[in-house]
Amino acid sequence: MKFGKWYVPMVIGIIAGMVAGNIVIQPDGPAPTMSSSQIASAQNKAFVPPGQHDEYYMFSSGGHSGQMFVIGVPSLRRIRTIPVFSPDSATGYGYDERTKELMGGFTWGDAHHPSLSETNGDYDGRFVFINDNANNRAAMINLKTFHTEQIIGPIPNIMGPHSAVFVTPNTEYFMMGTRFSVPMDGSYKELEQYKESYNGALQAISVDQKTGHMTPAWQLKLPPWNFDLSDAGKGPSDGWAFLTTYNTEEATHLLEVNASKNETDYILAINWKAAEQAVKDGKFEEVNGQKVIDPEKAPGIVYAVAAAKSPHGVDVTPDGKYFVGNGKLSPIVTAYDFEKFKQAVENKDFTDEVRGIPVVNYNSVMAAEVEAGLGPLHTQFGTDGYAYTTNFVESTVAKWKIGEWKVLDKVTVHYSPGHGSAAEGDTVSPDGKYFVALNKLAKDRHLPVGPSHPENMQLIDIEGDKMEIINEAPIDPEPHYAQIIKADKINPVKIYEKDENNPDAIWSEEDARIERNGNKVTVYGIAVRSRFYPDEIKVNEGDEVTIHLTNIDLDQDITHGFGINLYDINFEVQPGQTNTIKFKADKPGVFPFYCTNFCSALHQEMQGYMLVKPKE
Amino acid sequence: MKFGKWYVPMVIGIIAGMVAGNIVIQPDGPAPTMSSSQIASAQNKAFVPPGQHDEYYMFSSGGHSGQMFVIGVPSLRRIRTIPVFSPDSATGYGYDERTKELMGGFTWGDAHHPSLSETNGDYDGRFVFINDNANNRAAMINLKTFHTEQIIGPIPNIMGPHSAVFVTPNTEYFMMGTRFSVPMDGSYKELEQYKESYNGALQAISVDQKTGHMTPAWQLKLPPWNFDLSDAGKGPSDGWAFLTTYNTEEATHLLEVNASKNETDYILAINWKAAEQAVKDGKFEEVNGQKVIDPEKAPGIVYAVAAAKSPHGVDVTPDGKYFVGNGKLSPIVTAYDFEKFKQAVENKDFTDEVRGIPVVNYNSVMAAEVEAGLGPLHTQFGTDGYAYTTNFVESTVAKWKIGEWKVLDKVTVHYSPGHGSAAEGDTVSPDGKYFVALNKLAKDRHLPVGPSHPENMQLIDIEGDKMEIINEAPIDPEPHYAQIIKADKINPVKIYEKDENNPDAIWSEEDARIERNGNKVTVYGIAVRSRFYPDEIKVNEGDEVTIHLTNIDLDQDITHGFGINLYDINFEVQPGQTNTIKFKADKPGVFPFYCTNFCSALHQEMQGYMLVKPKE
Repeated sequence: MKFGKWYVPMVIGIIAGMVAGNIVIQPDGPAPTMSSSQIASAQNKAFVPPGQHDEYYMFSSGGHSGQMFVIGVPSLRRIRTIPVFSPDSATGYGYDERTKELMGGFTWGDAHHPSLSETNGDYDGRFVFINDNANNRAAMINLKTFHTEQIIGPIPNIMGPHSAVFVTPNTEYFMMGTRFSVPMDGSYKELEQYKESYNGALQAISVDQKTGHMTPAWQLKLPPWNFDLSDAGKGPSDGWAFLTTYNTEEATHLLEVNASKNETDYILAINWKAAEQAVKDGKFEEVNGQKVIDPEKAPGIVYAVAAAKSPHGVDVTPDGKYFVGNGKLSPIVTAYDFEKFKQAVENKDFTDEVRGIPVVNYNSVMAAEVEAGLGPLHTQFGTDGYAYTTNFVESTVAKWKIGEWKVLDKVTVHYSPGHGSAAEGDTVSPDGKYFVALNKLAKDRHLPVGPSHPENMQLIDIEGDKMEIINEAPIDPEPHYAQIIKADKINPVKIYEKDENNPDAIWSEEDARIERNGNKVTVYGIAVRSRFYPDEIKVNEGDEVTIHLTNIDLDQDITHGFGINLYDINFEVQPGQTNTIKFKADKPGVFPFYCTNFCSALHQEMQGYMLVKPKE
Repeated sequence: MKFGKWYVPMVIGIIAGMVAGNIVIQPDGPAPTMSSSQIASAQNKAFVPPGQHDEYYMFSSGGHSGQMFVIGVPSLRRIRTIPVFSPDSATGYGYDERTKELMGGFTWGDAHHPSLSETNGDYDGRFVFINDNANNRAAMINLKTFHTEQIIGPIPNIMGPHSAVFVTPNTEYFMMGTRFSVPMDGSYKELEQYKESYNGALQAISVDQKTGHMTPAWQLKLPPWNFDLSDAGKGPSDGWAFLTTYNTEEATHLLEVNASKNETDYILAINWKAAEQAVKDGKFEEVNGQKVIDPEKAPGIVYAVAAAKSPHGVDVTPDGKYFVGNGKLSPIVTAYDFEKFKQAVENKDFTDEVRGIPVVNYNSVMAAEVEAGLGPLHTQFGTDGYAYTTNFVESTVAKWKIGEWKVLDKVTVHYSPGHGSAAEGDTVSPDGKYFVALNKLAKDRHLPVGPSHPENMQLIDIEGDKMEIINEAPIDPEPHYAQIIKADKINPVKIYEKDENNPDAIWSEEDARIERNGNKVTVYGIAVRSRFYPDEIKVNEGDEVTIHLTNIDLDQDITHGFGINLYDINFEVQPGQTNTIKFKADKPGVFPFYCTNFCSALHQEMQGYMLVKPKE
């Protein structure tokens, strides 16, 4: 194994430095000055003049903000924040009844990897999915409305589904491999019992093609390792998914050291069509209502292949012929030949078996080891077989070519890139042109804003032989992964269609009313430039109040908000939308309500009063 | 009164159209194309090349998002979101104990008008304040850390302090005039008793010059009108504050129509030094612990002057010689001469008295009526006496000059500007150069993102005779006002100073420990690249758990997060910072915790386990 021969001393040095916590490998200090011709080139390419639209949408995870960011490329302007796992008082997300239910009692999520729906391996602009690493969930955003429409989970038996979302080429499935091992049935077991009682897992989620709705399909029981990232096969490798592992040492403490001992970990290749068949054949056990397949009892589903020390990303090439493992603690990117892998499986060309999983002969399936740089994390693809790998430790992006297997160009980024994202980079036909480095550290790149720094996106022009940084923008924490889709693939609606059948909606002032049933008060109201009907709501202290509000302004961009002073209530109604809020009128007195979203020249007049009559 | 002669039919038409809800006056449809020389000029001026810093910080309110946005000018990049009134899972704001307490049980706020601290009428870069229109609060952000350090309120007796924050020239005070009238003591009164039992109010907040900490000073009881915006006098008008009114009709329903009937409303001029003296002289009543001055009983504090129909903004010129009222429902901006106003007060040149407030003779104090355009809302100032007024209804910015009193140039913006902000525009010496129009509607200006639109900022170059739009960026809802400060005036810290005296902090692995006292468990932990100490926390179901976590990586931009799976917990520790979280261990089982903020190449290894032993 080539990388075994020379990377060890270097990596030990890096790890030692990081363990000591005082070695900063990435460059720091003032940025290199761009020449005036470079600046001219950058602004010609990246500046989007007022009134013109960006060429691409970038959907970026918001990390522990819980949200999704919609960013224009090449301008890098954040067009919108889509609330997903965390509340957003700007839009009333998590405050109105529908979105409160959607959030399921959680107040945050750790949104990691967005995935656009695909048809025949190409982004189709229908939906975008994202995982929640913290609470074992996934969300679906409908790109007609850009609103979160479904959140599933917490799904039982899994813990920290970091390695999602990466959809299959026709959005049949996505795989949520877990980062953390736990007792898989949710029981209590001490860490001393880790090796025998803890497990990793993979959750397959199936997607309804019409609605985008997600359903937990089946689970795969996996060894007590950490699983990091995954990708779906395509073309010749369609039907397979690939999953990186670390901590195959099965350490429970100080993983920084104890999970960095093995020279190699694994990439798992999972035959999800075989898993589907196993479920059909009844080869599963039901645990907490989930269909769990144990690969030891259902062979032919999971195979392992050695991967250099704690690999991070795994990425399938656009043609589906290779899957590429990124070293993290090794300076190489390994390309595996899928055809050779399939042959090795057929020939039982195995070198080992770990926990019932056959280990395919590395030397039989390894196509190349590309010397990408220090800390290669992720690889994205452009046109003509070009590949772009982010090197976290040395703060570069390396360009190399499938088949040539050597680095052709490198560009220094600022600083420490995690994922990168290329235009249509996860499809069967990437566009080339743009690559965005999602840098974890910004340090001195923008006006200082105190100890809490933004992350830093850098736009790289990848059209020429030499990569060129042409734009840069700070961004709130924390984009992990992003996907970039051609703008014309998405056609959102501008207003909500008038829904005459919604029993909560009313469409005229005449229908506005307040109904009382015991201590339950229900308000049917409208918001229209620039008034609420009704604009006086009288209730008694202790009443349970429900307000249904419909925005009857069927006009683009005319949003109304509804806030009640001191009642900690705010939500919004988009044009044509009806939303509902419920609360207990537990504070007596006089409380104004008002439109919180500037809607017209008479917006300030759009107000009313809620009078809460005190108990005698 | 000049404007009385001709504006009536036009305004009636506008109002009728808006009431009907179907007249869209602002331009719509595709934007006018910029010429290639205009584009070249725009990108030369507005594009900030990678690695270069912006020239100015813009502090923008985030409206009902509850937050403050820090934006670079001229790039219009959002550098940071500072959480203020709403939780932010990205930074753990509202999750850790300190910030949870700061939020005071509220989950949102309606942040309206940021105000930078001033010394001698110039921004000094120490603090920025902002009001919460929903919950009668104000917040102070320390610009050393860019963190919210204090929130006061809800303050009793006031309701909807929309007209803040506009600090006095040495940050002695800011005035929170209320938008809504309510029974001032918080009692319950029906709307039928509005005229006799409801009141507006003004809350003066004093500011500690060393710490920036705010204290409620005194309140002014005002008529049952709506108060909209305010500004502080400076130079000759220092010691006074100006406040616009609407709904002097004292309507309680359908304000859109019923508060738009009077030909004029008022601007109130408040002598806050006289109010200070009145408090010293004991001329106040204590209501709910607040010192309330009744101007009828303490004359010489409040005066009124007529202002065209429902005025919106009021703005004091840099030299303090004029205050300018913006018409909203009248097409004019009125400039009042402060010296003449003072003389009229001295001469008792009054035309009326309303609710005990003398009304100064309009004709004696009016310096000019500038025909700005349809729906003038706010005026900002540049160099050499130039003024810039946003016209909401006609979607323009009008440039005019103090003394010349006529419009010199107009530029169409997209669409419907609310406030505008000029570089150092609220100081005694504005910089000119840049003006940002904070447009309420974006419509077709950016890639479509469904029914929920962003707002739209446009950067206008105001250096030449003709104004020129040179940059444009979408922004999440909703910037109301913003202030733009020269970048070199702010010098934030990069890390938190190591605080050896904080009893919750520990600075080495050796001090990491878990203490138990009955069912109370206290963890003293550290976060350091790339591990937590301790990394195993064993508790019993039902325990009350407190975790103090210190980030001992004293290195710029090395933030660690701390999330616990399924426990809905996430917070962060900045370099050198200690934060605390408390929760009940009410779910038995095994729960990983992990660093949520990508911190190093071994970030994925930065994890541990919380084991919650089930009750027998």
